[in-house]
Amino acid sequence: MAVFQKTVEVKTGKLYDFVNITSAVQRAVEESKIKNGIAFVNSVHNTAAVIIQEADATIHKDLIATLERLVPIDADYNHDYEGNVNATAHLKSNLLGSSVSVPVENGKLVLGTWQQLFFIELFEARRRRVVVTVVGE
Amino acid sequence: MAVFQKTVEVKTGKLYDFVNITSAVQRAVEESKIKNGIAFVNSVHNTAAVIIQEADATIHKDLIATLERLVPIDADYNHDYEGNVNATAHLKSNLLGSSVSVPVENGKLVLGTWQQLFFIELFEARRRRVVVTVVGE
Amino acid sequence: MAVFQKTVEVKTGKLYDFVNITSAVQRAVEESKIKNGIAFVNSVHNTAAVIIQEADATIHKDLIATLERLVPIDADYNHDYEGNVNATAHLKSNLLGSSVSVPVENGKLVLGTWQQLFFIELFEARRRRVVVTVVGE
Repeated sequence: MAVFQKTVEVKTGKLYDFVNITSAVQRAVEESKIKNGIAFVNSVHNTAAVIIQEADATIHKDLIATLERLVPIDADYNHDYEGNVNATAHLKSNLLGSSVSVPVENGKLVLGTWQQLFFIELFEARRRRVVVTVVGE
Repeated sequence: MAVFQKTVEVKTGKLYDFVNITSAVQRAVEESKIKNGIAFVNSVHNTAAVIIQEADATIHKDLIATLERLVPIDADYNHDYEGNVNATAHLKSNLLGSSVSVPVENGKLVLGTWQQLFFIELFEARRRRVVVTVVGE
Repeated sequence: MAVFQKTVEVKTGKLYDFVNITSAVQRAVEESKIKNGIAFVNSVHNTAAVIIQEADATIHKDLIATLERLVPIDADYNHDYEGNVNATAHLKSNLLGSSVSVPVENGKLVLGTWQQLFFIELFEARRRRVVVTVVGE
């Protein structure tokens, strides 16, 4: 049994940027030399999300529209120090979650045919970080 | 320390089928021979969810009604290749999550009195799979 | 490699109490003597949530307002045995999630500058429990 940990940088370009981090996480699993176990991807930010979803622009648009409807930017928020985009980013992050886990088998992430890992920028263009932890043998 | 992994098949009958997978996950923990640690249940699908909830039909009805209200099937979606049920299934999956973790103590899942594990079909009748990973000693 | 597990009691005072459990989880990590790995915090309740968020009262207010808007207490629910606060607590718990994971490096939780761990009471004043599991070496 072993544990491996690595920080991966994610550069986002704007609000609602969906950055596909699947390859970066798969590379971390390969670096770990762990063949069977489970990988965890944890964002260290309150205004971003990490999800599993299809690599399809139409579903990303639908997710953005859903977030806008559920937590509209144009509304009143108490956390207004950095504007409504920031306030709503905090809330959307709690609805979507900021971490995922993915099983590892024979050194590969076990993902369904249409599953990819996305880091979603919910605030503004930033240098972000996720921590990848792999546990197994 | 050891890691154990097993794929469990879940047959769903229709949209919004709540399949109680607690016993199947508990059996995987027993097969693993791991006494203390933590179990992870990961769906490999984008149009289903895995949650912890009470085994009570009224709360399942309320969750379905809430999902319908937050992500209505009768609305406009960009991801319309497979119809609105499919599009909304993707979105509901991101709101509920597609994996859970459960601590393991003395070979048993550590769940509250009213907690059970459910696989929720968000699309249509399908043969589904979850990967159970147990880490511990 | 080792695994460590500990139950932490959380006393909540009322609906929507946000209890900062970061220090309690950090202490469990120290007790574990595990230096590098990952910690899991799992609530054993269906009517509470565990989230990562900023320790800022304004954002907590906004999250409460968002929950009230998405899952209003003043509406009709099937699960009405214990009243609408209870019914909505179940639903809000599934939207927010009842567990989080946090990487551990050099014996410290790896959290962003503004990230803290909160147990959120979604029902009423209670003695609650979370299980902290630390895996690593």
